[in-house]
Amino acid sequence: MAVRAAVAGASGYAGGELLRLLLTHPEVEIGALTGNSNAGQRLGALQPHLLPLADRVLEPTTPEALAGHDVVFLALPHGQSAAVAERLGPDVLVVDMGADFRLKDAADWERFYGSPHAGTWPYGLPELPGGRAALEGSKRIAVPGCYPTAVSLALFPAYAAGLAEAEAVIVAASGTSGAGKAPKPHLLGSEVMGSMSPYGVGGTHRHTPEMIQNLSAAAGGPVSVSFTPTLAPMPRGILATCTAKARDGVTADLLRAAYEKAFADEPFVHLLPEGRWPATASVHGSNAVQVQVAHDEAAGRIIAISAIDNLTKGTAGGAVQSMNIALGLPEELGLSTIGVAP
Amino acid sequence: MAVRAAVAGASGYAGGELLRLLLTHPEVEIGALTGNSNAGQRLGALQPHLLPLADRVLEPTTPEALAGHDVVFLALPHGQSAAVAERLGPDVLVVDMGADFRLKDAADWERFYGSPHAGTWPYGLPELPGGRAALEGSKRIAVPGCYPTAVSLALFPAYAAGLAEAEAVIVAASGTSGAGKAPKPHLLGSEVMGSMSPYGVGGTHRHTPEMIQNLSAAAGGPVSVSFTPTLAPMPRGILATCTAKARDGVTADLLRAAYEKAFADEPFVHLLPEGRWPATASVHGSNAVQVQVAHDEAAGRIIAISAIDNLTKGTAGGAVQSMNIALGLPEELGLSTIGVAP
Amino acid sequence: MAVRAAVAGASGYAGGELLRLLLTHPEVEIGALTGNSNAGQRLGALQPHLLPLADRVLEPTTPEALAGHDVVFLALPHGQSAAVAERLGPDVLVVDMGADFRLKDAADWERFYGSPHAGTWPYGLPELPGGRAALEGSKRIAVPGCYPTAVSLALFPAYAAGLAEAEAVIVAASGTSGAGKAPKPHLLGSEVMGSMSPYGVGGTHRHTPEMIQNLSAAAGGPVSVSFTPTLAPMPRGILATCTAKARDGVTADLLRAAYEKAFADEPFVHLLPEGRWPATASVHGSNAVQVQVAHDEAAGRIIAISAIDNLTKGTAGGAVQSMNIALGLPEELGLSTIGVAP
Amino acid sequence: MAVRAAVAGASGYAGGELLRLLLTHPEVEIGALTGNSNAGQRLGALQPHLLPLADRVLEPTTPEALAGHDVVFLALPHGQSAAVAERLGPDVLVVDMGADFRLKDAADWERFYGSPHAGTWPYGLPELPGGRAALEGSKRIAVPGCYPTAVSLALFPAYAAGLAEAEAVIVAASGTSGAGKAPKPHLLGSEVMGSMSPYGVGGTHRHTPEMIQNLSAAAGGPVSVSFTPTLAPMPRGILATCTAKARDGVTADLLRAAYEKAFADEPFVHLLPEGRWPATASVHGSNAVQVQVAHDEAAGRIIAISAIDNLTKGTAGGAVQSMNIALGLPEELGLSTIGVAP
Repeated sequence: MAVRAAVAGASGYAGGELLRLLLTHPEVEIGALTGNSNAGQRLGALQPHLLPLADRVLEPTTPEALAGHDVVFLALPHGQSAAVAERLGPDVLVVDMGADFRLKDAADWERFYGSPHAGTWPYGLPELPGGRAALEGSKRIAVPGCYPTAVSLALFPAYAAGLAEAEAVIVAASGTSGAGKAPKPHLLGSEVMGSMSPYGVGGTHRHTPEMIQNLSAAAGGPVSVSFTPTLAPMPRGILATCTAKARDGVTADLLRAAYEKAFADEPFVHLLPEGRWPATASVHGSNAVQVQVAHDEAAGRIIAISAIDNLTKGTAGGAVQSMNIALGLPEELGLSTIGVAP
Repeated sequence: MAVRAAVAGASGYAGGELLRLLLTHPEVEIGALTGNSNAGQRLGALQPHLLPLADRVLEPTTPEALAGHDVVFLALPHGQSAAVAERLGPDVLVVDMGADFRLKDAADWERFYGSPHAGTWPYGLPELPGGRAALEGSKRIAVPGCYPTAVSLALFPAYAAGLAEAEAVIVAASGTSGAGKAPKPHLLGSEVMGSMSPYGVGGTHRHTPEMIQNLSAAAGGPVSVSFTPTLAPMPRGILATCTAKARDGVTADLLRAAYEKAFADEPFVHLLPEGRWPATASVHGSNAVQVQVAHDEAAGRIIAISAIDNLTKGTAGGAVQSMNIALGLPEELGLSTIGVAP
Repeated sequence: MAVRAAVAGASGYAGGELLRLLLTHPEVEIGALTGNSNAGQRLGALQPHLLPLADRVLEPTTPEALAGHDVVFLALPHGQSAAVAERLGPDVLVVDMGADFRLKDAADWERFYGSPHAGTWPYGLPELPGGRAALEGSKRIAVPGCYPTAVSLALFPAYAAGLAEAEAVIVAASGTSGAGKAPKPHLLGSEVMGSMSPYGVGGTHRHTPEMIQNLSAAAGGPVSVSFTPTLAPMPRGILATCTAKARDGVTADLLRAAYEKAFADEPFVHLLPEGRWPATASVHGSNAVQVQVAHDEAAGRIIAISAIDNLTKGTAGGAVQSMNIALGLPEELGLSTIGVAP
Repeated sequence: MAVRAAVAGASGYAGGELLRLLLTHPEVEIGALTGNSNAGQRLGALQPHLLPLADRVLEPTTPEALAGHDVVFLALPHGQSAAVAERLGPDVLVVDMGADFRLKDAADWERFYGSPHAGTWPYGLPELPGGRAALEGSKRIAVPGCYPTAVSLALFPAYAAGLAEAEAVIVAASGTSGAGKAPKPHLLGSEVMGSMSPYGVGGTHRHTPEMIQNLSAAAGGPVSVSFTPTLAPMPRGILATCTAKARDGVTADLLRAAYEKAFADEPFVHLLPEGRWPATASVHGSNAVQVQVAHDEAAGRIIAISAIDNLTKGTAGGAVQSMNIALGLPEELGLSTIGVAP
């Protein structure tokens, strides 16, 4: 008996990627697809790569359209999920791919998003300590941000093992799809091809408190985060370079052991063999995470680097993975660790 | 009972793409993986995107390594397939992803490849008239070239319907993976990013006689082909712009009807709705072909345009599709019409 | 005594490239810079690469702002140039970088642009037969379209020498800056990177009648043109693959001789040595044109290929070159044949 | 009376960029061009973008070929410069674009380069404190590495003003031309397009001791550096994200003032207005450096970011700038602050 899934916000990049995955998920039947400005259009014009759905027509995002599904995925602008979720009832699994329910601290939410806090839902990063338990049987899931996914997976083992000082310095490069499909001048191909540029510098990016929340939980105490995102000339992918001062006594062997332990049973996180480093191309279109870690003795720092596909593991794949857990399905169902390269 | 498949030439782009597809093929079990200069290395170092095969070790390409399989895929430099195939016996399905057995005319072969003609095998483009019948039950398959795949699918309906004059003019743009993984200065990222350039101009590209063979068969008489390939700054994809003079009496409606008829039952070829045009991104990583056709009344020409992924439908996907037919499996098994975009 | 130049439309790509060139032109002093929606903004925010002009403020495009200059460059949406030009008086050199005054045939204009024909100005492609004479001393210049520049330079020698039949088939790839700076979904970096796609197929692109006009003049009789433009994943550059049936008796030597003669004294057009082919990267940021020609004997066709920078020789560089001629300055002043590569 | 300049290593990216700049330098006459494996070839085949030099033939790199010039630029593999320089005599200005003479500490050199230390020459980064004085009248110049140029300019003002703690954490993204023109599999366009990946992680990159040298000099005491370079899918450009813990009492105003003071009279370094951030596209092909700095109060860190063109200011432009100073020419001669964008 198939799980019937609706997608609110099916015309954007997150929605498109989710549909790409759901199309091959053996237990999911794709139900209503909704949009706002694009309601009434065929999906073939909006997501031309999703050939099997080419003739599906987008409905407006209304409670009626979303009713009657087992799972409803929300790929909406932030601030809109709470109102939609309320109307869906407590027995429907609601998976919010937006930011609304990620943060536990209302003050953090308000400072970074400038609107009242809607609440906190179980957080969809199963690889974190206690992450799976929080999702099992849940009817609400807050899908993590793309940067916090990459950064938390790269650094939490060092914090959980007590190897890193509580000040993380992170620089990440993201493909342009992370900035969405709404046309803005600085996102034009002419502007981004051949260029690297930072944005949200100085602690202002909205994913910062989410990283602090995750790393602090792993460390068992407050971790400060200096986070600088940069826009890279590629459509997909995040490469997160995450560093922290090594605590006294840390060695490369201790580090390696901590990371091996953290990811030993993880189906999607791949700690690379020594000497090899992550590349976003290797996880293009896959739910895999490549991680590697080094100890810079001279500088006294740990450097942990991860590569993910921002749309897959960083958004839609993470959403499906968490859905699988919440529904009691095998966690890997409908997800792949095979990248599309070159 | 799984089909056991070996891949000779598993370290290159064609081999890597084939493995990507075979990994999710429900009837295939991946057997021996062989290489030459890379024998002895782990696949994780050579194809880091194929996580489930990371620990597999490449063997040298020998008859012993390839023995005991139901299917052997050859992704070898041209001229080497015949010797390997001979040793495999007549009951093994041999799928040659190289050029050796594509051409029927030995003189053509010798003029373009400069070596003795090895023979002709059933041609793996099932969408051509009579294409499927030639493959059913066959134990030998010559996988078409990437450009001939894109070009033949774009133009054969016009020739089969008698709508086009016998002189085709074709300009195609290919991603760089079509040029292979052997490092050459002009294929460096620094050289190709931001640049378009032609090569093999003036009828010298080796895929030209293969196009002529296919289009002439469709037309029922000799078709001349002017073919200009260009290198585009992208890793994958072919966009083929194919034109021919329209015969007297041709109209847009007649053209549309011919194309609709040609592709009505094709699982992988998608004739786009009027007003939309192919884009290589839409078929990235998929076995789908996007086709559109127009009639330029003022110039008196038919313009048919196709987009494929050169590594998928243009090489490894085409190989799997033909294998499925030869083995009596459902043609679409293990293949997708869903692109990875953006 | 410097030539004082104003630029109407200084915030777009054409205006920005023009300013880049004028900044190093030894005889030009940059006067008023105007815009519409961006009036009041500093150029540093709009054209951050033009450091010496960072503090200049855009004025609204009014007759007052443009008054008092020796040259006024118009980089305006089509249909707006005539009204501005009228107010400038007959003694000011007006260089229109838009389409308004390129076509001689009013019916062509109306069919392709859907508005009344504004007139015809001397055409700014000095390399065409008689091209320089038309510009000397002129007070009005219509800068050619980017595609017609690339195509006309590639093919006119074959037509002028009577070597080509009167039906040209042209496929060109352009960088995205040719589509301008106004943000549209299909021009987002996420959409264009990794993708090739056609547009304006079937004789509908507005540059088609301009090509016909130029090639017919060279041939001394009507030439039909089948033109297919494609969008390439790069910011700049046009690669034009232009073919025509060879007339009886044409040989590679005759072709080569015709092209050598056509470009013997041209400072910007470089007929490549035999065996080498144009690449857009080689002319990035330069006013140079790379041309090569081949004779495909088997197909009976001439293949002439050119590479230009669409913003330099294809727009702003062509404008400066024509301005130099009109003002009696050395034609090469302020222009370079040195590309920025890799 | 022109300065006669020879270039040893004219076929690589650094040599090509140098020639691009020297071609428009009003005081330089280009003399001998030498190479090793490419000796005997025309420059048109090796550097097709340098049209005015297309017919120049590369000579072998011998003392005879390099004799009789006022300036000799060395773009050679590291370890080869000393032997060539010795033969040139003390009156010839020798500008080494390689690493051989950059480091003051012989032990550092030997640890990172694995060969005996050749010595230390005046360091070609005039913007550093005392930088110009060291170059005036000098007959030997060590051109800085591309990363150290970007990083030192971004961070030295914070150290010189005593605002930053002595542990810098730096992540930089470079275009592929920084890796040179020798073909290697991981530098193929197919591999780099669409991918970000790190290399030289953990303090192993050879530019690390050079950064330490520069920042320690500015700080007046030892500064440790954690440096992670990443390869970005673009041909040119470096974006360096440089952070350090802020000392007690640091404010955004203090920071801004320190950077304004440091760059007030610098012709090539542009401290961006508040709210704008560097982009590599803005300095493409130019000798300009874009810098911006922020104070992340929550994390207690300074974030300084710079963008340069790795081939221009990062290599060949820096070389020309230092040559100008050494020869007593105006520092900006032959150099531009105008980028080629988009």
